[in-house]
Amino acid sequence: MKRLLFGAAYYDEYMPYERLGKDIEMMKKAGINTVRIAESTWSTCEPQEGVFDFSHVERVVDAMEEAGIGVIIGTPTYAVPTWMIKSYPDILAVTVKGRGIYGARQIMDITHPAYRHYSERVIRQLMKCTAHRKCVIGFQLDNETKYYGTAGKNVQERFVKYLRKKFSNSLDAMNHEFGLDYWSNRVNAWEDFPDVRGTINGSLGAEFEKFQRMLVDEFLSWQADIVNEYRREDQFITHNFDFEWRGYSYGVQPDVSQYHACKCLSVAGADIYHPSQDRLTGAEIAFGGDIARSLKQDNYLVLETQAQGYLDWTPYKGQLRLQAYSHIASGSNSVMYWHWHSIHNSFETYWKGVLSHDFQENDTYREACVIGREFLETGSRLVNLKKKNDVAVLVSNEALTALKWFGIEATAAGNNGIGYNDVVRWIYDTLYGMNVECDFLWPESENFGQYRVIIVPALYAAPDILLEKLNQYVRDGGNLLATFKTGFANENVKVSHELQPHILGRCLGIKYHQFTFPQGVKISGKIAEESGDREVKAFMELLEPDSAEVLASYEHYNWKRYAAVTKNEYGKGKAVYVGCMLSKTVLERLLDDLLKEAGVERTEERFPVIVRKGKNDFGRTVCFYLNYSAQRQTADCGPSDSRELLSGSELKRQETFTIEPWGVKILEEMQPEKELT
Amino acid sequence: MKRLLFGAAYYDEYMPYERLGKDIEMMKKAGINTVRIAESTWSTCEPQEGVFDFSHVERVVDAMEEAGIGVIIGTPTYAVPTWMIKSYPDILAVTVKGRGIYGARQIMDITHPAYRHYSERVIRQLMKCTAHRKCVIGFQLDNETKYYGTAGKNVQERFVKYLRKKFSNSLDAMNHEFGLDYWSNRVNAWEDFPDVRGTINGSLGAEFEKFQRMLVDEFLSWQADIVNEYRREDQFITHNFDFEWRGYSYGVQPDVSQYHACKCLSVAGADIYHPSQDRLTGAEIAFGGDIARSLKQDNYLVLETQAQGYLDWTPYKGQLRLQAYSHIASGSNSVMYWHWHSIHNSFETYWKGVLSHDFQENDTYREACVIGREFLETGSRLVNLKKKNDVAVLVSNEALTALKWFGIEATAAGNNGIGYNDVVRWIYDTLYGMNVECDFLWPESENFGQYRVIIVPALYAAPDILLEKLNQYVRDGGNLLATFKTGFANENVKVSHELQPHILGRCLGIKYHQFTFPQGVKISGKIAEESGDREVKAFMELLEPDSAEVLASYEHYNWKRYAAVTKNEYGKGKAVYVGCMLSKTVLERLLDDLLKEAGVERTEERFPVIVRKGKNDFGRTVCFYLNYSAQRQTADCGPSDSRELLSGSELKRQETFTIEPWGVKILEEMQPEKELT
Amino acid sequence: MKRLLFGAAYYDEYMPYERLGKDIEMMKKAGINTVRIAESTWSTCEPQEGVFDFSHVERVVDAMEEAGIGVIIGTPTYAVPTWMIKSYPDILAVTVKGRGIYGARQIMDITHPAYRHYSERVIRQLMKCTAHRKCVIGFQLDNETKYYGTAGKNVQERFVKYLRKKFSNSLDAMNHEFGLDYWSNRVNAWEDFPDVRGTINGSLGAEFEKFQRMLVDEFLSWQADIVNEYRREDQFITHNFDFEWRGYSYGVQPDVSQYHACKCLSVAGADIYHPSQDRLTGAEIAFGGDIARSLKQDNYLVLETQAQGYLDWTPYKGQLRLQAYSHIASGSNSVMYWHWHSIHNSFETYWKGVLSHDFQENDTYREACVIGREFLETGSRLVNLKKKNDVAVLVSNEALTALKWFGIEATAAGNNGIGYNDVVRWIYDTLYGMNVECDFLWPESENFGQYRVIIVPALYAAPDILLEKLNQYVRDGGNLLATFKTGFANENVKVSHELQPHILGRCLGIKYHQFTFPQGVKISGKIAEESGDREVKAFMELLEPDSAEVLASYEHYNWKRYAAVTKNEYGKGKAVYVGCMLSKTVLERLLDDLLKEAGVERTEERFPVIVRKGKNDFGRTVCFYLNYSAQRQTADCGPSDSRELLSGSELKRQETFTIEPWGVKILEEMQPEKELT
Repeated sequence: MKRLLFGAAYYDEYMPYERLGKDIEMMKKAGINTVRIAESTWSTCEPQEGVFDFSHVERVVDAMEEAGIGVIIGTPTYAVPTWMIKSYPDILAVTVKGRGIYGARQIMDITHPAYRHYSERVIRQLMKCTAHRKCVIGFQLDNETKYYGTAGKNVQERFVKYLRKKFSNSLDAMNHEFGLDYWSNRVNAWEDFPDVRGTINGSLGAEFEKFQRMLVDEFLSWQADIVNEYRREDQFITHNFDFEWRGYSYGVQPDVSQYHACKCLSVAGADIYHPSQDRLTGAEIAFGGDIARSLKQDNYLVLETQAQGYLDWTPYKGQLRLQAYSHIASGSNSVMYWHWHSIHNSFETYWKGVLSHDFQENDTYREACVIGREFLETGSRLVNLKKKNDVAVLVSNEALTALKWFGIEATAAGNNGIGYNDVVRWIYDTLYGMNVECDFLWPESENFGQYRVIIVPALYAAPDILLEKLNQYVRDGGNLLATFKTGFANENVKVSHELQPHILGRCLGIKYHQFTFPQGVKISGKIAEESGDREVKAFMELLEPDSAEVLASYEHYNWKRYAAVTKNEYGKGKAVYVGCMLSKTVLERLLDDLLKEAGVERTEERFPVIVRKGKNDFGRTVCFYLNYSAQRQTADCGPSDSRELLSGSELKRQETFTIEPWGVKILEEMQPEKELT
Repeated sequence: MKRLLFGAAYYDEYMPYERLGKDIEMMKKAGINTVRIAESTWSTCEPQEGVFDFSHVERVVDAMEEAGIGVIIGTPTYAVPTWMIKSYPDILAVTVKGRGIYGARQIMDITHPAYRHYSERVIRQLMKCTAHRKCVIGFQLDNETKYYGTAGKNVQERFVKYLRKKFSNSLDAMNHEFGLDYWSNRVNAWEDFPDVRGTINGSLGAEFEKFQRMLVDEFLSWQADIVNEYRREDQFITHNFDFEWRGYSYGVQPDVSQYHACKCLSVAGADIYHPSQDRLTGAEIAFGGDIARSLKQDNYLVLETQAQGYLDWTPYKGQLRLQAYSHIASGSNSVMYWHWHSIHNSFETYWKGVLSHDFQENDTYREACVIGREFLETGSRLVNLKKKNDVAVLVSNEALTALKWFGIEATAAGNNGIGYNDVVRWIYDTLYGMNVECDFLWPESENFGQYRVIIVPALYAAPDILLEKLNQYVRDGGNLLATFKTGFANENVKVSHELQPHILGRCLGIKYHQFTFPQGVKISGKIAEESGDREVKAFMELLEPDSAEVLASYEHYNWKRYAAVTKNEYGKGKAVYVGCMLSKTVLERLLDDLLKEAGVERTEERFPVIVRKGKNDFGRTVCFYLNYSAQRQTADCGPSDSRELLSGSELKRQETFTIEPWGVKILEEMQPEKELT
Repeated sequence: MKRLLFGAAYYDEYMPYERLGKDIEMMKKAGINTVRIAESTWSTCEPQEGVFDFSHVERVVDAMEEAGIGVIIGTPTYAVPTWMIKSYPDILAVTVKGRGIYGARQIMDITHPAYRHYSERVIRQLMKCTAHRKCVIGFQLDNETKYYGTAGKNVQERFVKYLRKKFSNSLDAMNHEFGLDYWSNRVNAWEDFPDVRGTINGSLGAEFEKFQRMLVDEFLSWQADIVNEYRREDQFITHNFDFEWRGYSYGVQPDVSQYHACKCLSVAGADIYHPSQDRLTGAEIAFGGDIARSLKQDNYLVLETQAQGYLDWTPYKGQLRLQAYSHIASGSNSVMYWHWHSIHNSFETYWKGVLSHDFQENDTYREACVIGREFLETGSRLVNLKKKNDVAVLVSNEALTALKWFGIEATAAGNNGIGYNDVVRWIYDTLYGMNVECDFLWPESENFGQYRVIIVPALYAAPDILLEKLNQYVRDGGNLLATFKTGFANENVKVSHELQPHILGRCLGIKYHQFTFPQGVKISGKIAEESGDREVKAFMELLEPDSAEVLASYEHYNWKRYAAVTKNEYGKGKAVYVGCMLSKTVLERLLDDLLKEAGVERTEERFPVIVRKGKNDFGRTVCFYLNYSAQRQTADCGPSDSRELLSGSELKRQETFTIEPWGVKILEEMQPEKELT
């Protein structure tokens, strides 16, 4: 990127009256330099089968080009037009609930040949119309693609073929690996394969979900191939990934294997939504950003984030700006709002844009103007920020899915309670509060060795080769912290019949035969006594140390002989195991010790002052100080004299400075500049 | 009416043994002078297609006629017989859940020609059998008619024809007005119209619900036409309207436009059910009564209310009588229980009647006897009570439906929280506690001008013409109080792209660009300081006064520059705007001031003493004092010497008197009588 | 039985690797003498239609026989193989949710001829392969059989034929008895009979559920006939009954009439699961055991109970042993775990067995070893324990079903709140805490006369003949305690139109016309004042004594003239009526008095020390002292000198002894031995 992208999704199609000129005028005033268009507008672009009308697209491209605003073209395929379903109703996905009804977005069978046929044609037409345009800086494939539960006969037949290949046509192998003998689910002839939507077999069910995720990879890759036929070298190709949704971007996306799906992209993209007002912490911005950056180990694009958003999100003064710099601080090269103007009809009417329904200037717009001006002034020192983190968190779609089938707190009364992402966020949020920046790793990642510390939350389902890789990592001098529910089942969600934790027991120096839930259990031991809240929050494995040192035990008359937290020296490295969910204060204490021993460099600041670092295109370290509170905070300048980029003021090394409520300071070290790359 | 109707629904069909003589004996003893019969007894009246057997009806009519008890004949059409569904299963409505299964009442497609064919035939047969009978005083069309979610292919085709007409065949007009471009929902050919059951477009969805409500109007009007062929001039025609059901009659009925549906009736009717025992407040009796009375701006019938009802309703001593007089005090000309005897089988076995399953005298029956005797003695002074209220509340089906699609407290996490009727009841219940009697208005009402004060709760979706009418009302000297969420979208649920509040901003003298939810926000300002609970309960619009005076502002560091409550002089009138949901005490304070300035006459009493007034057939003012508490209360006689009708005792003007726990006093002023009309 | 069975379900089919030899070695070490096999393994036994492969069964039988371990053969029919559904998809039951999808167990139409055909064939094949084997000690028919909601066209047609017979082909009789006139549900021609799945008529609905329960009787009896063709005289035939499931075995099974279904068995069997750890009380073990024992008025088998079970159940030290002796103390001749090893895939992966997934010895296994050794040493004195209880509790499927249709706490807002089993457990758990052992009776039981006291919880729906039988019981000198909601409706859920309580009013000496829910109501009167918590917990009938003495009245200004608890002398007996749900302390006080007057022998101990008694094969009384607490407890030896069987130590009569936390003492009186029978 040459500059930070600052922009919004723009829908000329949805306008209640002619706005284009006025909108561009307001955009220019706000410093907006990019819009994303065309995404989900199929029924406008192709009003009837084979009849194309790109007038909305063209007039916007024309106007933006004239205004010097860049355009990202989104393929319109994630919402299908009415005529298509009228003629081909079986394009609507069949899910566990049966055939869908037309109405919402994301309801089609993404494998359906008729859908593919029409998709390809409209993409090609759109590309022909836009790809050659100068202002078009890149393309977004579809939007938040998932598999939408598609599980019709055609999809299931494809799945059976996939299984035949996976198991080299051996039914015995499949039955054994998936444990299908249980409850008479054994399949003794491929043609007997039952409707997988009804399965109660967690291994088969999880495999089907994995297969469904692969449909997403294949779909995006197929779209990328089409777009690539048209795009110029200087145009990027991206996708708008999203995250597990709990009313905001919460955790690892269950329905997409982003690690695989991103391979067809030139730059990763994501949307990040988060609580705001008093509940704004920046944690989701950092979490989503760290995932997006780690996908291609490079800068990424924030293609959507909230301007006003829902009513509980209407930002306080300063928050929009704080959020913008937080995205940049994580390595994003863009801040793009969903969306420019609030929509007057339909469904997302209260997912408000930069402008309210009245199109007038408002507090949010006015704050966007500040951001736009600052980006223009200081953007060149913030774009392409590179990080070199010492800590990584390993996440896994397979573990997530498996822990949905076999809930951590499931009882005979029901499968509820915390899930995989709660463990991930427990880890991540603790690191975030400690100002420990981290990358993400996936099971297939090949760069484990570059980290001083790897943290492994609840890696419930993992192939032996991954667990061996983690052992090797420790043996070679790495520092591992793994939590309960790690290394229990293989990638087919078949629980290991060997001692637990499977394979990892070697580097961890422990084993356990049993586990239970805490009922009024605390932990004891040194690590606990100094850490405030000693309660065991969820799950508890009854650990028996072999070579490991016991850092904490359970305080309960019946469980007191078992360890709760252990630490083991293994090869040149160390491995800590946390056998239960603990308070964040205890976890912070454990992490503090581990990071210290691992030699990870740290900052003194703690939440609500968030510190993020990176190297800019000038080879200089840029350090963001983000005040996530309504109170003025202080922080100390780093070891070099620095310039505060937003104000231009200079600070001496170690000098204490203040940050306004919901405010930002960005310090660039005043070393001699490298040449511009 | 010549007398107050006191009665019950009576089902000879359901009797476990021969009861008719004994029941009539007990009715006579209780002073019951009316029964409602035949409603929902189709399978008895027409046991097989075309085979009619009205023996139950006839023997009851014969016996009642002999006993001097009037009979209301209900058409039996709201529950269909088994033979009909066996032959025509597609009479069962197709809803969003698919085709229904036989069993419950109210499951048919009320537009289905076969259902209409059979309905017409059975109604005509029933009319022939009963209409000429002397004791038959009136007819009830169907019962609690709604559209039962009917949304089959036939209904949807009719809906598309309706849309073609509404939009003069212009797809562009429809797409634009409903915002169908969003998520590719645009319809580019009428034959592409998708299954509306799946729509996520709130404008289209709300329009469909409006269309479905029109089916109810049409159905009742069609039944009325048939009945009118048979009924005598002295026989009334009514319908049993009900209200939003939350385990009791809570608010405006979402599925029926009662304003339109009542046009085919000669008298409005309703059923009113409400909490009882310690939770009995009378608010639902007053609310439902005020709506029913306002429908035809005349007296109405309470066709059903609870005798014993459900177990949590079993009345305390005095409550049945208190309730009866409360209905009359609101202008009802009847109190009819559902139902005479408790049912021994099926479904509503615990919706108990006047008699328990044992048919014995019980406390409830004994209290009914008291009521019956008193009605006989004093009824002529209570019947046809006329009111002249200064205050009206404007309610709207369109606003209700729109706020279901776009919930007031909806977030990205879900659409829950308070709805339209919660705002309506917040307003109504506050007025009720203040003893301010009111009428209801609907968007199409033509009598706005007769009120000193109009209150407009959450009129979210409204045509421009209605908002202009409200402006005009104020300009002409009216006093308006409107709440948050008023004047935001038009009647097609298209949000205005102009300044908010749309159009009404003129009379209100304010505007706002943004709104949010309160998180620990209070209000400040004079109005607040004297009113106890200053918390903002729900929603908050960030008001900016133009010409308006600020009555309250928000107490929160980020919102303090915005107003919460404003007041504006406009033309000859005044307009108060309440931008958020406040405590009832603050609202009461606001209303107090407004009513005072508007010159509305008031009483000193407050809940739990409820005061209701009206003029009787003798031209005298009758004033009810209803004690909604378990404690004895006192009240003061009005400005005239009065006679207490139930005891016959006389009171001097201003004289203080007592009301027993759950007791009633009814004072008739002792002016010279007008001639009996 | 010659010995106590100690064992587990064993699934060679599910093993991840060859384990048989090692497992048998571990079983022998643990004293396990019985395994249950083959249940639910159809897809392994018959991998393709007509292709049989019993190699898993045979190798286990061979190995067990050699090891001297007995085998129970379960017919595999409760989970169907994939090939069957592929060819005959309509074997999947049609329920209110429509046709099912393959996957789970217990999803078939148990009446389907194709299912019956295949079931019969596989059972016969399995019998041929196993019945003659020496180690095979018995057979289990199917498993936890129910009707799985089966309600397809075929089942409904059979139901209509059943109704025609029940009502001697008289539609009038049916319509009258079921009250079908209500809401036009009347059936006027048999061919009009509507889809019963949609019915809202509680009488019809409850009758259908009764009919469905009869399908279970018929199915099990049909299986028994097949198995009986093969089994030897010394082999038993049993079934694994289960209970209402609330995450554990809670109450009377709603879907099976166990009283009828057990007729085809030679010994009753059951599975009992229960909360554990701090929530372990033993109440479910006693409850399920008392039911199972009462079914055939003989010893029974615990065919499944938890070893480790779910994570909140992982037993504390001592609990597994305590549970085992609790089963024996109730008259079980077996303790069999579900299951030997934890399963590595599929669904019940966390329903853990004796062994964890790692197959290693663990705390649970080690405690099983203790139990096994003790059973070997003392089993001959514990097996075939006979009881002679003075107290019985009458339970009824008809009452349970009826109170599901007409919930005790149902309001117009919904049908929630306590159900039949909550009343049953309120009674039972109070008796349990008082150490009053009891049997169960069913409506059709013929041994009412053998009990000094019969307790009747909420016998809502009962035929007149049963109520007369209870009157007769009291008249003949019995002591009855009946609760609210007894004798209200007949067996067709038609509420009586006579005075309540119907028929029983005679022996109870009371009547009531009305009832309500308590809102802040307490009871007053002697019985109350001495009993702590006087609150009325749920429901309250407004009792009016005729001849009865009032034991407690309601403390509430409006209800104070009504009785809450009454007692009546009737013939030679006494009848107490409890008109509302009270605290357990008040109930205990009532029961205490009644038992005393009835001359029921009692022990001094109270929960957490549980005392159970029986006579062993040597004619000696054996008394179990079970400490359900984490604290050491003391108890007193009975009136004879005794030997503590587990330690061999001797105690003098009345000697005080201690019981360890979660510990057990078993005292056998030291009278001269009878000859071994």
